[in-house]
Amino acid sequence: MIKGCQNECTGGGCSGETAKHVTDSFKASDLIITPATTFKEKPDPSGLVFGTVFTDNMLTIEWSLASGWEKPYIKPLENLSLHPASSSLHYAIELFEGMKAYRGVDGKIRLFRPTLNMDRMARSARRTTLPSFDQNELLECILKLVEVEKEWVPYSTAASLYIRPTLIGTEPSLGVKKPTKALLYVILSPVGPYFASGSFNPISLWADPKYVRAWKGGTGDCKVGGNYGSAIYAQQEALEFGCQQVLWLYGEDHQITEVGTMNLFLYWINEDGENELATPPLDGIILPGVTRQSILDLARSWGEFKVSERYITMSDLTAALEEDRVKEMFGAGTACIVCPISKILYKGKHLHIPTMENGPELTTRFLNKLSDIQYGREDSDWTVLVS
Amino acid sequence: MIKGCQNECTGGGCSGETAKHVTDSFKASDLIITPATTFKEKPDPSGLVFGTVFTDNMLTIEWSLASGWEKPYIKPLENLSLHPASSSLHYAIELFEGMKAYRGVDGKIRLFRPTLNMDRMARSARRTTLPSFDQNELLECILKLVEVEKEWVPYSTAASLYIRPTLIGTEPSLGVKKPTKALLYVILSPVGPYFASGSFNPISLWADPKYVRAWKGGTGDCKVGGNYGSAIYAQQEALEFGCQQVLWLYGEDHQITEVGTMNLFLYWINEDGENELATPPLDGIILPGVTRQSILDLARSWGEFKVSERYITMSDLTAALEEDRVKEMFGAGTACIVCPISKILYKGKHLHIPTMENGPELTTRFLNKLSDIQYGREDSDWTVLVS
Repeated sequence: MIKGCQNECTGGGCSGETAKHVTDSFKASDLIITPATTFKEKPDPSGLVFGTVFTDNMLTIEWSLASGWEKPYIKPLENLSLHPASSSLHYAIELFEGMKAYRGVDGKIRLFRPTLNMDRMARSARRTTLPSFDQNELLECILKLVEVEKEWVPYSTAASLYIRPTLIGTEPSLGVKKPTKALLYVILSPVGPYFASGSFNPISLWADPKYVRAWKGGTGDCKVGGNYGSAIYAQQEALEFGCQQVLWLYGEDHQITEVGTMNLFLYWINEDGENELATPPLDGIILPGVTRQSILDLARSWGEFKVSERYITMSDLTAALEEDRVKEMFGAGTACIVCPISKILYKGKHLHIPTMENGPELTTRFLNKLSDIQYGREDSDWTVLVS
Repeated sequence: MIKGCQNECTGGGCSGETAKHVTDSFKASDLIITPATTFKEKPDPSGLVFGTVFTDNMLTIEWSLASGWEKPYIKPLENLSLHPASSSLHYAIELFEGMKAYRGVDGKIRLFRPTLNMDRMARSARRTTLPSFDQNELLECILKLVEVEKEWVPYSTAASLYIRPTLIGTEPSLGVKKPTKALLYVILSPVGPYFASGSFNPISLWADPKYVRAWKGGTGDCKVGGNYGSAIYAQQEALEFGCQQVLWLYGEDHQITEVGTMNLFLYWINEDGENELATPPLDGIILPGVTRQSILDLARSWGEFKVSERYITMSDLTAALEEDRVKEMFGAGTACIVCPISKILYKGKHLHIPTMENGPELTTRFLNKLSDIQYGREDSDWTVLVS
């Protein structure tokens, strides 16, 4: 085990190979737990605005090039004390994850495919030159944090505890370089049902090629801050046009890529007359969503229709709409699981997507299947129990 | 004056027009100055690593949607206390500027074209949905801060005081949205001569299209954090190939765009046999640098050769090198003013750029001219005196 190696040998040709000689990591067995002794009132989850209420405790783990990872702490949630030159605040050397803990019908608390989040977090860390860590150890620390905060996991199958792992550069200097200091922390936020009415509210999208979310050679396939801050301006413009989210297009041929902060799925009769569930391929500009992967895995296991990771352009879509070949279109992400799409404003025209008229059968089936697994109504090796 | 208007009417079609009904701003006349009473030792500027030493005081100004801008403060430099959900740490809702204060040969302290920085900062704020402000008021506050810290402006014409205005979202919630809280702050750092030897050290560049700095529809023309964090990974790879900086390419035809964190200039005999100074146009992927603009302005005022904002591809460059038409190539930015380029590693080949063999005459002329203005050896309306 080479202590801090990833960050010491950057000039010598090894940083592309860091996975092979894993650097040291913090250990969950070193956790120092000094939980809060005063407690906030737990809100009714049905009235919560996403990500506005936080639990009593947080997990923090400091790293420096000189000393490697320090011991992990679970301690009362508090403000971070950051040098004003911190590289996260100037150069967006920062990444995050989004996952949830669910209280099942059997009273047990589950996480959903958390190793996929840990894997993605490790990839994001590498892309942002933040320190590597042992993903299993981080997951163990997160499970412990959720256990400490278990009363914050809503007693509801329409709500959950959102988990936000975050890794930021805390280098206190202004050179644009690999940070020599970093902070990993995890905060928790109880979140209510995404669809307040309990049923689907389909959303409308604004599709304009003038803003581009991500591009080849960039960071669109990592969960890093820079992908999000740049998107809000376009989101504002979508609202001005009366739409709720941005449909992100790419390239001269206006490929459909993602929607808002979600992956996108189209269920249709394709050009060859086949029933097909399609989503854009992971070619570097698409975030490899956990919900995306789960929907692909489920659909493939069913074997009832073609499942494709393929390009879809706006002209493919408009042709299919004209020929009445579109069945359902939906976004997919941790926040809502699936989110039906009913309208796209493109080149000044409102395109009606008949998702709701078609049930939405498939969208609902995915929602129910995933909810059943997450809330323990169905056994699955996709869930990890909080001890 | 509509207090906080920019952020209240975002759903109603006005955010694209914020410049017309300017929101309220902090005022320099409201400054509350409670300077440090203990002082750090001022370092010898010749041995400084860029951006690692900070002065005793900082400027801070808080903003919220509910109350607008608070009064500006000049107070001892201290760590920021930030909620762990702050939108700057998760979604890179953050921007910065880079400028310098110079102690002239006449003992007066000058800023160089600071209104260009203020204008760019306002544009960056709009793109990141951070609050607008009166640029003149901010400049007044910065001038006051430099005045308070005037002994930190190096007594040297080979050093200066680097000024880092920063604006970050401090929204304490996890929704990806326009922040309702923000913090503007300015920190100062004495910086030494960029070229320690006192003479030019030409740099080598690594040009590989697999990493792309910025793209049409993105934020490459704003000084926002996300442009920088994503660049460090490529910079690491450049170092592994024995090069010092990345030459950022764009598009199928490998257009030359920027170098590291600098704009790029080529002085050559162009395809039509003309002496030409060329730099890529401000088409959305190029940062509108203050040094870039100043070099263009100077060269145009001289009227001695063609000055173009135009596309240059790697094949344009390699053809010119083969035909011995390249005279000088250099980066341009606030840190180094101009930085000569001697080598480019492209497609496995080392291209030699004869910048140093050619003097570098023009590069040196720009360096001397700009230094003369900055250090008061030459009068110019490009400088603003610190009172």
